[in-house]
Amino acid sequence: MDSMKSTPSTQTMKTQSTGLHGQIAGKTRLCTVGKSGSGLTYLGYDIVELAEHCEFEEVAYLLLNGELPNASQLNAFQEKLMALRELPESLCRILETLPADSHPMGVMRTGVSALGDLEPELNFSQQKEVAYRLLAVLPAICVYWYRFSHDGVRVPTQTSEPTIGGHFLAMLNDEGISDLHRKVMHSSLILYAEHEFNASTFTARVCASTLSDMHSCVSAAIGALKGPLHGGANEAAMDMIEQWNSPDEAEAGILSMLERKEKIMGFGHAVYRESDPRNAVIKKWSQSLAEEVGDTVLYPISERCEAVMWREKKLFCNADFFHASAYHFMGIPTKLFTPIFVMSRITGWAAHVFEQRADNRIIRPSADYIGPEARSLVPLTQRTH
Amino acid sequence: MDSMKSTPSTQTMKTQSTGLHGQIAGKTRLCTVGKSGSGLTYLGYDIVELAEHCEFEEVAYLLLNGELPNASQLNAFQEKLMALRELPESLCRILETLPADSHPMGVMRTGVSALGDLEPELNFSQQKEVAYRLLAVLPAICVYWYRFSHDGVRVPTQTSEPTIGGHFLAMLNDEGISDLHRKVMHSSLILYAEHEFNASTFTARVCASTLSDMHSCVSAAIGALKGPLHGGANEAAMDMIEQWNSPDEAEAGILSMLERKEKIMGFGHAVYRESDPRNAVIKKWSQSLAEEVGDTVLYPISERCEAVMWREKKLFCNADFFHASAYHFMGIPTKLFTPIFVMSRITGWAAHVFEQRADNRIIRPSADYIGPEARSLVPLTQRTH
Repeated sequence: MDSMKSTPSTQTMKTQSTGLHGQIAGKTRLCTVGKSGSGLTYLGYDIVELAEHCEFEEVAYLLLNGELPNASQLNAFQEKLMALRELPESLCRILETLPADSHPMGVMRTGVSALGDLEPELNFSQQKEVAYRLLAVLPAICVYWYRFSHDGVRVPTQTSEPTIGGHFLAMLNDEGISDLHRKVMHSSLILYAEHEFNASTFTARVCASTLSDMHSCVSAAIGALKGPLHGGANEAAMDMIEQWNSPDEAEAGILSMLERKEKIMGFGHAVYRESDPRNAVIKKWSQSLAEEVGDTVLYPISERCEAVMWREKKLFCNADFFHASAYHFMGIPTKLFTPIFVMSRITGWAAHVFEQRADNRIIRPSADYIGPEARSLVPLTQRTH
Repeated sequence: MDSMKSTPSTQTMKTQSTGLHGQIAGKTRLCTVGKSGSGLTYLGYDIVELAEHCEFEEVAYLLLNGELPNASQLNAFQEKLMALRELPESLCRILETLPADSHPMGVMRTGVSALGDLEPELNFSQQKEVAYRLLAVLPAICVYWYRFSHDGVRVPTQTSEPTIGGHFLAMLNDEGISDLHRKVMHSSLILYAEHEFNASTFTARVCASTLSDMHSCVSAAIGALKGPLHGGANEAAMDMIEQWNSPDEAEAGILSMLERKEKIMGFGHAVYRESDPRNAVIKKWSQSLAEEVGDTVLYPISERCEAVMWREKKLFCNADFFHASAYHFMGIPTKLFTPIFVMSRITGWAAHVFEQRADNRIIRPSADYIGPEARSLVPLTQRTH
């Protein structure tokens, strides 16, 4: 990634047309990837420390305010978010019109866009309030639609759970949730909160660079995260591991997929080379959850996949792989895995929009023209092809 | 813009963080800006020739298929688009929930996003059909919401007008429209159809690079175009010129705005240096429309603004300036000016999504880190700030 920085001359020209990889497209204070500590930092803090010791709301506050909150700031922030959870009536009606077989990421994209029509960001002095509102309301946008379209229930969008992760699980399941679940959600949401200039964040920044509103930037980012090359790997990993009944079957399955050169989701990373710092954290939680639910199949299968992929391909699990079993053990439907990513990444997206706005120039690159030479117009009636 | 190409070394590093200006971010066959002919070409054809001699549907076909249609292809294309005009019932219900004071660009963003939930693009083999559907239905998404929220009318989304521009005007006005109006709409829609890697198109391409669906890419692009640094200049120009009652008053107004260093919308361009090739075309139509409606105020005011801005600042009218008076003479409400841009640019956006998909690599640049050094986590209860 960084080779260009030392030798920008010819190499620059070569890499310019290939996805801007390794090209600097802007500045950020928010995140480093592959540079220090375990490999991922948010505003200087190592992700592993944050995920082990913090609640998600602390990290959300950090990203949106630049510093971690003290105890009273955290308390005030959580109360504020709880007060911002209710969906407007009109948004409920809109979500009710979207069919059960809609893509949940499409539903979230539409929900955020419609919220922007109902509660517009009128000027940038409101940007933090708008980001808080989105952070508070995204779980309900997802679950209200899901439960109405799948269970025929208009689920209340206020619960007694003080945290975002607990609130999401409580709306989804009518039975209570365990303290372990709350803790896993904190870690999971922290792991997914921010990742520098990934494609969805860069989408949000390009959109923000026209000085458009926050809802435009966030719905654009959701649309980008929806793409299978970006979000969705945890869902694909789940689809894969749940087809097997034992670790041996999984090993045979992986080997035959490798032989057929099929893409195996949840492994490797565009930036990390040796390991993904987020994997150890979520793997540990997956193991605890397996113990809680008495699983003796899915977790051992996941571990075997990890061992086989490393042995055969030197590929390591990324953040997504053990998220699949962890979410599954908590009773979350597979199709809602990527929406959880949205509920978390909203913090990183919004923080990048703040940054872009604070030092903006419209993002407008050039293109390498490879089309037809200048040609004269042939009148319609004389076009004979 | 092009200086980097000859001297990419240090200059590259300097310009990389400033909006990627002059940086090559990909290849295109669709468009050149500031290179040959009058300065703007679509697939090798000069924009002035296209705008003078073609119907918009010919240019839409050109962008989406790579070649101009012959007469029978054009006929089949127009019939196909006419058959694709109806809004789904659920989308009508969604549009009816959006209030009259919503931003029309937000309504279009939500409409396209919701259409993607109701009629998803299931695989890329459907991409051209999806683009045709969006092209056909965008006028109705805009006007159905507008007339329902402003006039309390559920306007029929099918009309007898065979062209997109005529169809838009017919839904908007219950009185008939003139042949001059149809011609102006052709020119106007052609002028706005495509413009290389502008910010909204680049947003669409970054989104497309995750292999997301067409509706995600197009709703993201609408969100970017909504920003005041991108779309909206024609609306701002209208707001400016309609405050004056005579050319002399306009001249005094412009001079005092210049003195106060206020931004005057509709002038100058990021790429063009001497003139915008689109201006002469739309200016001519504005003059014809002024004659049709018997205007003796707004057109002379617009001409005076042009003269004063050139005399004082050597700034020329861009595509947007005479669009303001032209749209106004056709009875189009100012707030629907930028949505017309969407009805046109959908062709360029969709064509760029096709291109991105055909030779894709995820667009994922790097960032220049300017944040805090690595720091240790202080436990919540010990944070004293």
